[in-house]
Amino acid sequence: MKKLIKNGVVVSENGEVRQDLLIENGVIARVAAHISDDETEEVIDANGCYVMPGGIDVHTHFNIDVGIARSCDDFFTGTRAAACGGTTTIIDHMGFGPAGCNLHHQLNAYHQYAAGKAVVDYSFHGVIQHIDDDILNEMSSMVHDEGISSFKLYLTYNYKLGDADVLRALQQLHKVGALATVHPENDAAIALRREQFISEGKTSAMYHALSRPLECEAEAISRMINLAQLAGNAPLYIVHLSNGLGLDYLRLARERHQPVWVETCPQYLLLDERSYQREDALKFILSPPLRNHREQDKLWCGIADGAIDTVATDHCTFPYQQRIAMSEGNFTRCPNGLPGVENRMQLLFSEGVMTGRISPSRFVQLTSTNPARLFGLWPQKGNLSVGADADVIIIDPLKNVTIEHAHLHDNADYSPYEGYRCQGEIITTLCRGECVYQDKKFIGQAGFGRFIHRQPFAQPTII
Amino acid sequence: MKKLIKNGVVVSENGEVRQDLLIENGVIARVAAHISDDETEEVIDANGCYVMPGGIDVHTHFNIDVGIARSCDDFFTGTRAAACGGTTTIIDHMGFGPAGCNLHHQLNAYHQYAAGKAVVDYSFHGVIQHIDDDILNEMSSMVHDEGISSFKLYLTYNYKLGDADVLRALQQLHKVGALATVHPENDAAIALRREQFISEGKTSAMYHALSRPLECEAEAISRMINLAQLAGNAPLYIVHLSNGLGLDYLRLARERHQPVWVETCPQYLLLDERSYQREDALKFILSPPLRNHREQDKLWCGIADGAIDTVATDHCTFPYQQRIAMSEGNFTRCPNGLPGVENRMQLLFSEGVMTGRISPSRFVQLTSTNPARLFGLWPQKGNLSVGADADVIIIDPLKNVTIEHAHLHDNADYSPYEGYRCQGEIITTLCRGECVYQDKKFIGQAGFGRFIHRQPFAQPTII
Amino acid sequence: MKKLIKNGVVVSENGEVRQDLLIENGVIARVAAHISDDETEEVIDANGCYVMPGGIDVHTHFNIDVGIARSCDDFFTGTRAAACGGTTTIIDHMGFGPAGCNLHHQLNAYHQYAAGKAVVDYSFHGVIQHIDDDILNEMSSMVHDEGISSFKLYLTYNYKLGDADVLRALQQLHKVGALATVHPENDAAIALRREQFISEGKTSAMYHALSRPLECEAEAISRMINLAQLAGNAPLYIVHLSNGLGLDYLRLARERHQPVWVETCPQYLLLDERSYQREDALKFILSPPLRNHREQDKLWCGIADGAIDTVATDHCTFPYQQRIAMSEGNFTRCPNGLPGVENRMQLLFSEGVMTGRISPSRFVQLTSTNPARLFGLWPQKGNLSVGADADVIIIDPLKNVTIEHAHLHDNADYSPYEGYRCQGEIITTLCRGECVYQDKKFIGQAGFGRFIHRQPFAQPTII
Amino acid sequence: MKKLIKNGVVVSENGEVRQDLLIENGVIARVAAHISDDETEEVIDANGCYVMPGGIDVHTHFNIDVGIARSCDDFFTGTRAAACGGTTTIIDHMGFGPAGCNLHHQLNAYHQYAAGKAVVDYSFHGVIQHIDDDILNEMSSMVHDEGISSFKLYLTYNYKLGDADVLRALQQLHKVGALATVHPENDAAIALRREQFISEGKTSAMYHALSRPLECEAEAISRMINLAQLAGNAPLYIVHLSNGLGLDYLRLARERHQPVWVETCPQYLLLDERSYQREDALKFILSPPLRNHREQDKLWCGIADGAIDTVATDHCTFPYQQRIAMSEGNFTRCPNGLPGVENRMQLLFSEGVMTGRISPSRFVQLTSTNPARLFGLWPQKGNLSVGADADVIIIDPLKNVTIEHAHLHDNADYSPYEGYRCQGEIITTLCRGECVYQDKKFIGQAGFGRFIHRQPFAQPTII
Repeated sequence: MKKLIKNGVVVSENGEVRQDLLIENGVIARVAAHISDDETEEVIDANGCYVMPGGIDVHTHFNIDVGIARSCDDFFTGTRAAACGGTTTIIDHMGFGPAGCNLHHQLNAYHQYAAGKAVVDYSFHGVIQHIDDDILNEMSSMVHDEGISSFKLYLTYNYKLGDADVLRALQQLHKVGALATVHPENDAAIALRREQFISEGKTSAMYHALSRPLECEAEAISRMINLAQLAGNAPLYIVHLSNGLGLDYLRLARERHQPVWVETCPQYLLLDERSYQREDALKFILSPPLRNHREQDKLWCGIADGAIDTVATDHCTFPYQQRIAMSEGNFTRCPNGLPGVENRMQLLFSEGVMTGRISPSRFVQLTSTNPARLFGLWPQKGNLSVGADADVIIIDPLKNVTIEHAHLHDNADYSPYEGYRCQGEIITTLCRGECVYQDKKFIGQAGFGRFIHRQPFAQPTII
Repeated sequence: MKKLIKNGVVVSENGEVRQDLLIENGVIARVAAHISDDETEEVIDANGCYVMPGGIDVHTHFNIDVGIARSCDDFFTGTRAAACGGTTTIIDHMGFGPAGCNLHHQLNAYHQYAAGKAVVDYSFHGVIQHIDDDILNEMSSMVHDEGISSFKLYLTYNYKLGDADVLRALQQLHKVGALATVHPENDAAIALRREQFISEGKTSAMYHALSRPLECEAEAISRMINLAQLAGNAPLYIVHLSNGLGLDYLRLARERHQPVWVETCPQYLLLDERSYQREDALKFILSPPLRNHREQDKLWCGIADGAIDTVATDHCTFPYQQRIAMSEGNFTRCPNGLPGVENRMQLLFSEGVMTGRISPSRFVQLTSTNPARLFGLWPQKGNLSVGADADVIIIDPLKNVTIEHAHLHDNADYSPYEGYRCQGEIITTLCRGECVYQDKKFIGQAGFGRFIHRQPFAQPTII
Repeated sequence: MKKLIKNGVVVSENGEVRQDLLIENGVIARVAAHISDDETEEVIDANGCYVMPGGIDVHTHFNIDVGIARSCDDFFTGTRAAACGGTTTIIDHMGFGPAGCNLHHQLNAYHQYAAGKAVVDYSFHGVIQHIDDDILNEMSSMVHDEGISSFKLYLTYNYKLGDADVLRALQQLHKVGALATVHPENDAAIALRREQFISEGKTSAMYHALSRPLECEAEAISRMINLAQLAGNAPLYIVHLSNGLGLDYLRLARERHQPVWVETCPQYLLLDERSYQREDALKFILSPPLRNHREQDKLWCGIADGAIDTVATDHCTFPYQQRIAMSEGNFTRCPNGLPGVENRMQLLFSEGVMTGRISPSRFVQLTSTNPARLFGLWPQKGNLSVGADADVIIIDPLKNVTIEHAHLHDNADYSPYEGYRCQGEIITTLCRGECVYQDKKFIGQAGFGRFIHRQPFAQPTII
Repeated sequence: MKKLIKNGVVVSENGEVRQDLLIENGVIARVAAHISDDETEEVIDANGCYVMPGGIDVHTHFNIDVGIARSCDDFFTGTRAAACGGTTTIIDHMGFGPAGCNLHHQLNAYHQYAAGKAVVDYSFHGVIQHIDDDILNEMSSMVHDEGISSFKLYLTYNYKLGDADVLRALQQLHKVGALATVHPENDAAIALRREQFISEGKTSAMYHALSRPLECEAEAISRMINLAQLAGNAPLYIVHLSNGLGLDYLRLARERHQPVWVETCPQYLLLDERSYQREDALKFILSPPLRNHREQDKLWCGIADGAIDTVATDHCTFPYQQRIAMSEGNFTRCPNGLPGVENRMQLLFSEGVMTGRISPSRFVQLTSTNPARLFGLWPQKGNLSVGADADVIIIDPLKNVTIEHAHLHDNADYSPYEGYRCQGEIITTLCRGECVYQDKKFIGQAGFGRFIHRQPFAQPTII
């Protein structure tokens, strides 16, 4: 089965070239200036459009049980939304299992969650709930036997780790070829403020933001940077950066040639804390919380100049009606998280590329190549070279789209980006050569998506 | 004659306080938590509003003859627009006089331009067209006898100065107590690109921007910074900064404790080079040209963190119809400059204060206090302390305004900000206690504005 | 009783002027270009010399009991050495008292230690051994009744505080008008490395340094910066900075206008980790340990450009013979600390002023004015204005001195700077008008030094 | 002919490995953990020593006619000194020819200067004396036919270029595959100060330094950075950096991913402006002049953190007696330049590696690999991989050397480093397998050195 994408501008991390792209058996078979369409079953005309590697969203939470609720997107609705937004691979976080459970326990659960449901390819991040010798010993087989080469540490919430455990985890992950990722917020500072607010009856949405100021996050970032260095220069990946001070700390680490990388999300680039003064403020409860434009400006600088490495979503869906019902407006009872897996690519293209902040190549780096390199998917994913999976998207820069939840494909009942006008439209998504989205319609199939056995971590050249 | 502004939040460069403000004979007579309205002829209720010092726009070009045309706002229409936008003092640039003319020649011309016309208070910047001993000798009387304590140098255009002349000018200005301001662009680089484009027939609006990339400006900024240091640490003020690299150079200078300050303008914060692809691109021809969002982000960082000292407009009006008629679309024949004196305060309030980028105090610093300190207007202007001129504006942060040229008060036939929605509205402007704008109407009088004899430059504490 | 210092160059934080200085009753009575010596009992000719405010060393540990030993300089030998080195005021740290003791307990002990012994003026820093409501409640009277307006927190050693306690301490200290100072090192990371080395039998002096790499210190600095911000922008003073990364974190805080200051010590500017390979390596055991020249270069940059605010000594004397006897070469049994109170001024003058790194004014800022402003001694100390205490030193920049312990006045049996050649000599020290050092001889008296009741903390203008 | 270097620690730009090295026919034949010495004519025991690629000094001026004098080292004495100091390749600057001469004119002259004289391998930099179409057209054959792939531009002295000529030169050099190097100092500012000093009779050595402050250099550096960007992102190499502000400008350019590199020299790292107060101050006249320790600290930071790319010497010998005779103490009549080709490697090793500022690998980068990559010598030079020229040095880190001119091999009558004690000694130098220096003796031969036809410029990976 052959497919030919003609007349587009093919974008890689290195540049843009007007090229044709031949797909055969789900992989890229040929890339050349002009490829004849003889013997090709299907030709897609990409004239005037960008042809790019499919997006890789390395931060989603499908099915996650956060204690007070379970996120309502499963591997079908979640990956369907991904596909319709130009994302062809996701890496989901194995949610929290019973206290004391081992790493394989959750891996088994997640294989079951995904089986037969995923529309696009997927993998999982391990999650470290506690540290002891058993967990440390188990890490190697997770990486080498199971293909799970990244693990998440939390510095807040129920499963927060102290400095000594963090050091042990980082050392062992480094040793077995895994990348440590971290949710960085200072638990003690949040707890103190939160208790204070509760004691004063201040529980409206704005107090969610006020209970975890940016310094909570920045502190934890610099702590992790230094602990990673002390753990023998262990590689480190910071998730969902929301503030400029944390970014400055990361810049310093990179100037010191330390192997540390950072992700941000569209919500931190485009939404702001004024949302917490809206009537529907509960829609925007997530952690870290939304900040102001001052932080946004600094994040955009990092997007543009290379200090930020990836853009992911932290997609975690709790419907607005559920938020209302559970919390009755009290932020301490509202589950945290925003949907967004379907909007990442279009938002970053519109606000990044079309405004002149970044080049199309930098867009590809942020959304696909860098995630692939960092998380053991390269070179199968993240590029359109011969032999790579034919995960391809086509973007028409002259079209416009307005985001309306009514047209989205996740299981939420709202979009935080409702009404947002985007310049540029993702018109086609192919996953391993199969069209899963076209003519504004989802045309994929549950179960088509495959689990990707990821490579052990190898330091990419992006630092 | 007494006026009382009650119940507002009075903002200074240092903070915000809920206070009443009593005005008597055009100056601030009292500031206190509660002032009785007995014996007060007029009471203005500012409940829910900010009460701030009137804006000072230190960069306008009324009546200026740029060789191929003369800007169409005079001191009446220009200051009327200023008043309606919350600006109560302007400092206009004396335009170019005949080649070889002395400094007083243009001063006389500008006194005539302004006499009987200005609605709000005003002063002028001198302009250095050439350097010789006569000009150097004339500087002192301009400062001390005439109250003109700032002078503009150009590094491009007809009256550009070479390094040796710049050094002589800076030394003498420093000696006589004047602040040197500079239009920084590298003339040779622009000339080379411009000639190349002309020879290739590339004269549409976009080539205006391409003929003067940001490095032209950044180069000239670092050159001026170093020449100022070499001239004996002479004070220096950079006008209309449009790019982040130049700002980085300025940051380095400030870290070295050098007395250098910088202004940007709303157009560089809010408009971008995509304007040059619009059908009405000629509306946006100015120098330096508009840049992309990457530069905007960096400028906003400087607005927020203190690296940028003032926001002015570079208001210089050439109607769109004139631009079309003169240029027929060829940028080399289109006069340069944008109107905007009426929009500065509302735009910066909306996009700065209401987005959380800056505090109301920082807004006052940028629009009023810093300009007053740098240009010899302090403490008469730039604050609401007892004894200061009662130049006062009232802003209601809950109102919205959409900019439409039909409602503006300058002499242009368009606004570059047409359709821009602003959060917060300037509802009242008082100049020396007299209301010049209220209920969305201009109610001032030509000739009410006075020439301000400015103080010699004295290094302000803002560095 | 009148004394006149003639013909010197008087240096303040703002500049240098050739002036005469008249002292009467222990305070500065007059400063003028020329003061007649009529009716003056004593005239000191300072021709060719700098006349500066006496040094203030805000970091000493006399008599301190560190658990395994007690430092051997008491308030006589310690302040005698200070006086001979041009330091006229010291602030000593109240050492650790019995677990659970309150703040006044140690204050009483230290008043007894100092009484009748001190040669120059002195005060004490409180030390926070634990946090509970009693301690929090006691802070106010320490500040306002006892004149103790600064308190030390430890993040490592026996009395380390966790994040929640640090936050409570910072909030309360801020509220009562005290400055928090902190010894910043990450305890968990040090413990892990230390245990590892011990288990491997690696206990020679070099492993002391290897057990506490610079990231341990840098981490704790950024943590404290952020906790101080979260405690309501509480003022913070970092002691004995030894590394460039920590300094970079502090630079970021200062760019954000945060009230945080930092001290370094001569040993971190001039000695390096090669000392740990010497035969007499035990002489150099202190925490944080000595680093390499790369860190020194960065600290010197901070000394020169203003990022570092003070230079103190952390003087804490354990004789070399005691170190050998107690440790038998095992770093874990060797008491930590270096002597140096007598060498601070001459070393910084020689390596700072005479090399062109800093001006004489900056030298005065670092050694006297900034400490006085930060620790509630200003304007009684830290300047030579009329009315200030006549704490004065005279430095001859053309003389040379080689440091030899045989000529020092402390109670140690070695100097870490043995053999160091200094350009410039402190030839005279006056404390409240009385000469305490002259002709290379100590001529002061035990008991002359007074306890200074310090002012509450007030944010100085140095940020 | 085979030679074996055994038991040493072989250092490359990437790290250090204990390896043996087999040399055959002047090239590296094998590198392995253990190589048998069977059939090897000569075995060199490098036990306890570093084995490194020979140094490459890309900045020398042999035979140069500077108008008022000719430097006294020719290609024999100059390269002999190089060899004895561990430098096995030099790139000399073709000196100034008659006004208006073309590029080949000086190339012919320099081939004659070097023929039969050079002891180690060599090449030349072209020098641009003026710009016209003929010169622009000639560049390509210089690069491709003659192997001259770098050209020097001057911004001061007789052959200074203006901005327009600089732009044309940069564009063309970029196009033909050559690297532009530049001597950056602002001519107008120097001229003004110099004239002022001369008019005041201030002509002693210190006024040499005062006539060209660091801002003269920094200004020219930022100008060149921006002109290079405006010339189409042309590659640029800044020579003999002496100040920290210029380095900050370069850091900004590198953050923007601009292809610009920078060299410093040992004299700027280790000597300071106090030299101009010595009796023998004339020995230290060079341009840019020596600065103070504040600038040294910043340069060392750049050496350590990667901001500086190469260390060269600017070796240019005018004997002290000649300086005295020509100038009679008047700096304006003293030829500029310092000797030093023999001291570069030992000084940087001692002050860089042995102090912990840099690793041995970074030393190799700075002195050999980076120069080779930037100037078209890689992979023939700059590394010890199989097939590379066997240019090898052996350094014993435990030996000490004191620099005395009596033991140096150039044609000067003094060393600016006289009396400097170095830790570490270069004990052996091999050039293409032949020993040219051993047992503190020169044992090479005039004429052994070959002209190296360099590759066109190709952007190295060091940015």
